[in-house]
Amino acid sequence: EQISDAAAALVDKGEHRHFMAKEIHEQPEVVGHTISAYLDPVARRVTLPEGGLDFGRIDKLTLSACGTAYYAGLIAKYWFETYAKLPVEADIASELRYRDVPYMPGGAALFVSQSGETADTLAALKDAKAAGQQTCAVVNVPESTMAREADAIYPTHAGPEIGVASTKAFTCQLATLACLAIGAGVARGVLSREEEERLVGALLEVPRHLAEALAMDEALRDLAHEMSGARDVLYLGRGVSFPLAMEGALKLKEISYIHAEGYAAGELKHGPIALIDEAVPVIVLAPKDALFEKTVSNMQEVMARGGKCCLISDEAGLAEAARGGELWGRVPVPSLPEGRLTGLLAPLIYAVPVQLLAYHAAVAKGTDVDQPRNLAKSVTVE
Amino acid sequence: EQISDAAAALVDKGEHRHFMAKEIHEQPEVVGHTISAYLDPVARRVTLPEGGLDFGRIDKLTLSACGTAYYAGLIAKYWFETYAKLPVEADIASELRYRDVPYMPGGAALFVSQSGETADTLAALKDAKAAGQQTCAVVNVPESTMAREADAIYPTHAGPEIGVASTKAFTCQLATLACLAIGAGVARGVLSREEEERLVGALLEVPRHLAEALAMDEALRDLAHEMSGARDVLYLGRGVSFPLAMEGALKLKEISYIHAEGYAAGELKHGPIALIDEAVPVIVLAPKDALFEKTVSNMQEVMARGGKCCLISDEAGLAEAARGGELWGRVPVPSLPEGRLTGLLAPLIYAVPVQLLAYHAAVAKGTDVDQPRNLAKSVTVE
Repeated sequence: EQISDAAAALVDKGEHRHFMAKEIHEQPEVVGHTISAYLDPVARRVTLPEGGLDFGRIDKLTLSACGTAYYAGLIAKYWFETYAKLPVEADIASELRYRDVPYMPGGAALFVSQSGETADTLAALKDAKAAGQQTCAVVNVPESTMAREADAIYPTHAGPEIGVASTKAFTCQLATLACLAIGAGVARGVLSREEEERLVGALLEVPRHLAEALAMDEALRDLAHEMSGARDVLYLGRGVSFPLAMEGALKLKEISYIHAEGYAAGELKHGPIALIDEAVPVIVLAPKDALFEKTVSNMQEVMARGGKCCLISDEAGLAEAARGGELWGRVPVPSLPEGRLTGLLAPLIYAVPVQLLAYHAAVAKGTDVDQPRNLAKSVTVE
Repeated sequence: EQISDAAAALVDKGEHRHFMAKEIHEQPEVVGHTISAYLDPVARRVTLPEGGLDFGRIDKLTLSACGTAYYAGLIAKYWFETYAKLPVEADIASELRYRDVPYMPGGAALFVSQSGETADTLAALKDAKAAGQQTCAVVNVPESTMAREADAIYPTHAGPEIGVASTKAFTCQLATLACLAIGAGVARGVLSREEEERLVGALLEVPRHLAEALAMDEALRDLAHEMSGARDVLYLGRGVSFPLAMEGALKLKEISYIHAEGYAAGELKHGPIALIDEAVPVIVLAPKDALFEKTVSNMQEVMARGGKCCLISDEAGLAEAARGGELWGRVPVPSLPEGRLTGLLAPLIYAVPVQLLAYHAAVAKGTDVDQPRNLAKSVTVE
């Protein structure tokens, strides 16, 4: 409801049936724009704007948001810790603002919001500021209230997002946060010049990987149609793929009304595995990173209990996992460089199949994809 | 599977149909034992064991566990922050152990496990120790591996727990953690002598409140039977009631195989509200604390969209909320003292209706309550 008619009139669906499909397909372009704002492609350096946070002087970062933007923040927590050795506390804004947060001197707080108007996130930002924290905001609308309130802003360049379920705003938030984490690593002396070059070089390839991932659009349709008959779906991941599992579940909830839930794969045995039967598809996000074997082992436990699993990985990962039994679904994602780079790139690239699965499942169910029931584009009241 | 035959032979179900029912009803007694170990009822003081953590010298506490014990830890995070102004980072053990955690000098790490043998939690404890953190463990088995590995242990006194779904071990973990949070507040000079007395006095009443809450056992049966026909259930809460909402959902998942999910009530509008229809019961945990109005307002949004809601609150809360429309279910919980004391007591007391709802739903469905499918009592492998 918060998208003005004027803004909506400026954009059309082009060749796409829904704004959401159009926005999913715009990701290579808008993530490219966003990265360009924070990286120097020739020098392979991070170039953060003047007047932003001085990451070299921060002892702790509090990171807060709602919904999809919160999951972007949770992924960024892993990045800030890995690349900048910066302790991060991530919390849901509606929780953070009502807790007795013991903010430490020398801390900063970062808030993420597409609209820059999300009521709980804005209130949390004001609280942090009042508590003496440096504040900054990652927003898609640079003239928003949050942009004005924060000490520093890091705009995303996703362009207007019309579909209520966030897609391109999410990956642009991730792209911005990835640049910030690398920039923080440089500022804190954690990353060498050589490591910065490698990480920046890898980020510059993201638009190309996204375009490759989008080529699977048609191929995912059948799988999504099959999934659309389910009443419940679980998404599993570890590390950076855990928040993405929650985001994948949220996308499916929002537009298909299927009760999907994201879980840390290691938590499965502590309860949710009791849900497993042939009626509950399990979507497993397992990039070929250091956690691949662990995640696949959790998937095999599900399969041993009669669960039907869909593995999202690269060809090598799919081939390796196939030895463990028959998969219900196989989603091949472009291969990514190994090691630490996979943890940086995977959330951005694996977002695509996760979005497409939800989109095609909703289309198969015949829901109102761009305006799902009960939801508003931005939540400007509590 | 990890309960030895010898241990199982020592306990019987008494008058109860299942060990789980027996263990739910033992809570006033075992929580009383646990509290006695950490409180001086005459002086109204916290008496922490010698050789434990020196909370006055800790800058940050990392808190980790799996499953139900993790939710106990999340609740404790609120307590440590409120009563001791101690920053706490809580994380799932299977995530913590594989992240690049930037442990700070002067930090401590606390691990929670009923068995003291949970594989991921034990590994996370060893990592924290290797990283130079002081470590401590809240365990129910004082001769466990975790108890041996940790620098300090804080035993719970729940006695042997046979039901796979944890109940009395959970509330005893909460009781121990509440005492630790108050002790930390005293050690850090945050709580005055008078505040300590008030908080300790309130904790001493917990066994009595638990006994009162257990009196609703029969009354919850009909509601639970009706709920047992649902395929999906949502649990909502804010503040300390948010982790309890997740624990309530986990209990229902574990033993009734109903897909229940716990959500921060403020997150509802950011996605899950799309799931709402008359087929998805919503259980709302709303003690009369500072967040009561906010939570009830979220509940009313659900009701406005045709959702059927069950409110768990005290009589005053139920009366107040009734003005907003017809509730599907009403669960009256004993009234608790107002203000900060409610945040301390509510998770312990509201655990009872949440456990009983899951128990009776499972009995109605005819599942194997004490040995649910696919689950083991303690997860000693990854």
